Amino acid sequence: MPTKSIAVIAGVGAGTGGCIARKFAQKYSVALLARNPTSYQTLVQEIHSNGGNAIGINTDVTSDASVKNAFSEIEKAFPGAPLAAAIYNVGGGFVRKPFLELSQEDFRAGFESNAKGAFNFSQAALPLLLKSVDLEHPPTLIFTGATASMKGSALCASFATGKFALRALSQSLAREFGPKGVHVSHAIIDGIIDIERTRGFQFDAPDAKLSPHSIADSYWFLHTQPRTTFTHELDLRPYVEKW
Amino acid sequence: MPTKSIAVIAGVGAGTGGCIARKFAQKYSVALLARNPTSYQTLVQEIHSNGGNAIGINTDVTSDASVKNAFSEIEKAFPGAPLAAAIYNVGGGFVRKPFLELSQEDFRAGFESNAKGAFNFSQAALPLLLKSVDLEHPPTLIFTGATASMKGSALCASFATGKFALRALSQSLAREFGPKGVHVSHAIIDGIIDIERTRGFQFDAPDAKLSPHSIADSYWFLHTQPRTTFTHELDLRPYVEKW
Amino acid sequence: MPTKSIAVIAGVGAGTGGCIARKFAQKYSVALLARNPTSYQTLVQEIHSNGGNAIGINTDVTSDASVKNAFSEIEKAFPGAPLAAAIYNVGGGFVRKPFLELSQEDFRAGFESNAKGAFNFSQAALPLLLKSVDLEHPPTLIFTGATASMKGSALCASFATGKFALRALSQSLAREFGPKGVHVSHAIIDGIIDIERTRGFQFDAPDAKLSPHSIADSYWFLHTQPRTTFTHELDLRPYVEKW
Amino acid sequence: MPTKSIAVIAGVGAGTGGCIARKFAQKYSVALLARNPTSYQTLVQEIHSNGGNAIGINTDVTSDASVKNAFSEIEKAFPGAPLAAAIYNVGGGFVRKPFLELSQEDFRAGFESNAKGAFNFSQAALPLLLKSVDLEHPPTLIFTGATASMKGSALCASFATGKFALRALSQSLAREFGPKGVHVSHAIIDGIIDIERTRGFQFDAPDAKLSPHSIADSYWFLHTQPRTTFTHELDLRPYVEKW
Repeated sequence: MPTKSIAVIAGVGAGTGGCIARKFAQKYSVALLARNPTSYQTLVQEIHSNGGNAIGINTDVTSDASVKNAFSEIEKAFPGAPLAAAIYNVGGGFVRKPFLELSQEDFRAGFESNAKGAFNFSQAALPLLLKSVDLEHPPTLIFTGATASMKGSALCASFATGKFALRALSQSLAREFGPKGVHVSHAIIDGIIDIERTRGFQFDAPDAKLSPHSIADSYWFLHTQPRTTFTHELDLRPYVEKW
Repeated sequence: MPTKSIAVIAGVGAGTGGCIARKFAQKYSVALLARNPTSYQTLVQEIHSNGGNAIGINTDVTSDASVKNAFSEIEKAFPGAPLAAAIYNVGGGFVRKPFLELSQEDFRAGFESNAKGAFNFSQAALPLLLKSVDLEHPPTLIFTGATASMKGSALCASFATGKFALRALSQSLAREFGPKGVHVSHAIIDGIIDIERTRGFQFDAPDAKLSPHSIADSYWFLHTQPRTTFTHELDLRPYVEKW
Repeated sequence: MPTKSIAVIAGVGAGTGGCIARKFAQKYSVALLARNPTSYQTLVQEIHSNGGNAIGINTDVTSDASVKNAFSEIEKAFPGAPLAAAIYNVGGGFVRKPFLELSQEDFRAGFESNAKGAFNFSQAALPLLLKSVDLEHPPTLIFTGATASMKGSALCASFATGKFALRALSQSLAREFGPKGVHVSHAIIDGIIDIERTRGFQFDAPDAKLSPHSIADSYWFLHTQPRTTFTHELDLRPYVEKW
Repeated sequence: MPTKSIAVIAGVGAGTGGCIARKFAQKYSVALLARNPTSYQTLVQEIHSNGGNAIGINTDVTSDASVKNAFSEIEKAFPGAPLAAAIYNVGGGFVRKPFLELSQEDFRAGFESNAKGAFNFSQAALPLLLKSVDLEHPPTLIFTGATASMKGSALCASFATGKFALRALSQSLAREFGPKGVHVSHAIIDGIIDIERTRGFQFDAPDAKLSPHSIADSYWFLHTQPRTTFTHELDLRPYVEKW
């Protein structure tokens, strides 16, 4: 029996990351990276009880050492298994403040969570993804973007700099690693996601929020595209969203 | 038994349109619009022999009357059947010439094939799509774009004006009809498609051309997105493509 | 004494086109193209009384023959004078309607006024501009864009298709004729211009509308850039505008 | 006699920054920020000998404290003088390497030089610019972008993340401070600038490089736009440049 491949998802919790993990766990062993065990413990158990393989690893993606350690743990847990997909879905870095009230830390937060973390994650994942070009689906690296990836709004200087930087990174990686057979994608999530934390956000339409399950389906779709026909960027948006 | 829904595809032939038709024919009755019967006859037979329903209709999409007639024929062939998807995949209008050598007809060709045809097609399809918001998948209108949708290159004034105009139309329709439950999408095909006509185009990599089958899979993916999570625009590009 | 050069402005009247004409008339003979003499008669007199040279020519820019005739008239009025600048500032084509209420003519209007007219104008102007590469300033072709050049809004399918198409044309011409020394620019006017027709539009701020004089200054700035340092595209927007 | 206003330019040396300084010194006292005195000493003398006012201040823009110190020095040198313009023209952070060879420092360099430095500079300049809304020209904050502001190329992950982030910052500031009367602009320099350091870069055309003098003229043009008619973004490109 061939070794089951691995998907690693950075940024799991009650929301989108969790749905992505469940989706990819249907085929792959999954490694779930989050700052706190509370973000992945229940999910790891759920995946196990559904017959899947999952591990959770405490990881601070803004730390090079922490990300390297996470990938060592993955290798220990699933020795010799190829990496099929790596998904960077880290939130955070969202600060909404008048510019002149931003502290140095506030401003840096957008870059650290988004671009710096994605850099650490990509440096660890890409050498493994490059070895997986002969798997059933092209090895895939997906980054989660936002409305702020395309537009720098007032009061959002920190988050927008981080998300713009992440988009630049994803383009640069797609152009360098695409020709080597790695599929690098950037998904622009343009709207409120329907998760625990946003339950209180009310709209006129009852289905005005993005479904995290459908986001996960979209990521799986990206992963299964053959290399003749890669999507680098797509937007995901509720039907009632203004844009 | 509920009535089988319909997908209408404008611009079918040996290439992408044919693959889209086959894909959608797995679930829907399909109506294939093309200028010449030679573009759809074999395909209609093939779909029939695979147990599907298909009709072909001679249509000049640049003619309002011809498009209206096509939709009358569809209603006659599949009376009462709801329209689930409408795909505008018309090529043509590609003229590569120094600007000062373009005739009035050359210049107009890009707009006629792309924007004018898409206007006629959308005006006929949207009233029907609006009635289909309670089907399994949100009713879907997809337009096929190109590299020239995003960039006006030298010698391509005609095609680029047509493709830019088509993109404007698709954005305007998405913003008007999205909130009414219709999924309007625009796919940017950035590369050479691997079809009969491009067989002679040689690249270093053997798989350097877009697979029309994968384009069809992508269109089907767009069609099956729930309305909480619509993609308006995605690019499709071979892994070795420069961009 | 060297022959005074010419600037031709299509789309003059009480607003922006008039201000552009006054600005360019400080250095050049100006030819003013408009559908009706009432759009240019007073302006021609004003420029004469200020010591400038100006002619007005009844022109329907959507007609190839009418534009050709206009350029013949210009040659008759200013024989042998080189063309220094050609500015396409034609409004029109603005139809705001639900998509399903658009007539064939409504939809075509955006393309005709913007792209088709600009095509006719450019085909007549570019052969003359190419002869002017040794003038003091690089020969210049400027197109007036709008918010709708960048975004296809609901109910604006006609205007947006026209303005997107115009932008495609301007990019294609810039890439073909830039290396030949012709400066092709596209100005995105994003806001309400402060002219007679918009006097009734009230905003909180008293200076919330674009100054047509400043637009003219910007066009003059574009014209005077050396070819080492061309601007292809700039936006122009009131300080209080949301974008 | 009214107090002469100030322009502060971060990133001066033999190239563009120096030309911007000379241009703004024709009307304003100028403060020149650079890491090393060798970057500004000759320029300060030249401006003095032409009857202007200039000071140079050793500044590391990536350090909050260093930038605050620079603005204190400016206040000491020109007490009570209003700030008319602040120009962030810092180069650096350009690293061209395969992604997997980038060190943590390499990757961070693009962000530090471009976004972090621009953050420090903007936090120091904006409180002063806000006090200058009644000067002859709207107070102006200009950022120097690059090709990499719009496109993340292979091997350019560090520089592109920094330049994308800078663009995000400039958009966010324009949307927050524009309505308060401050003109925030972003200039995309798309090509090689004709300076000492690029003397060896040969092209077919003798004038294939951007003129730093013309870049300075463009910045001055931006500064003198009235607030009814602000340009947020323009590109600057040699006529022969491919884009």
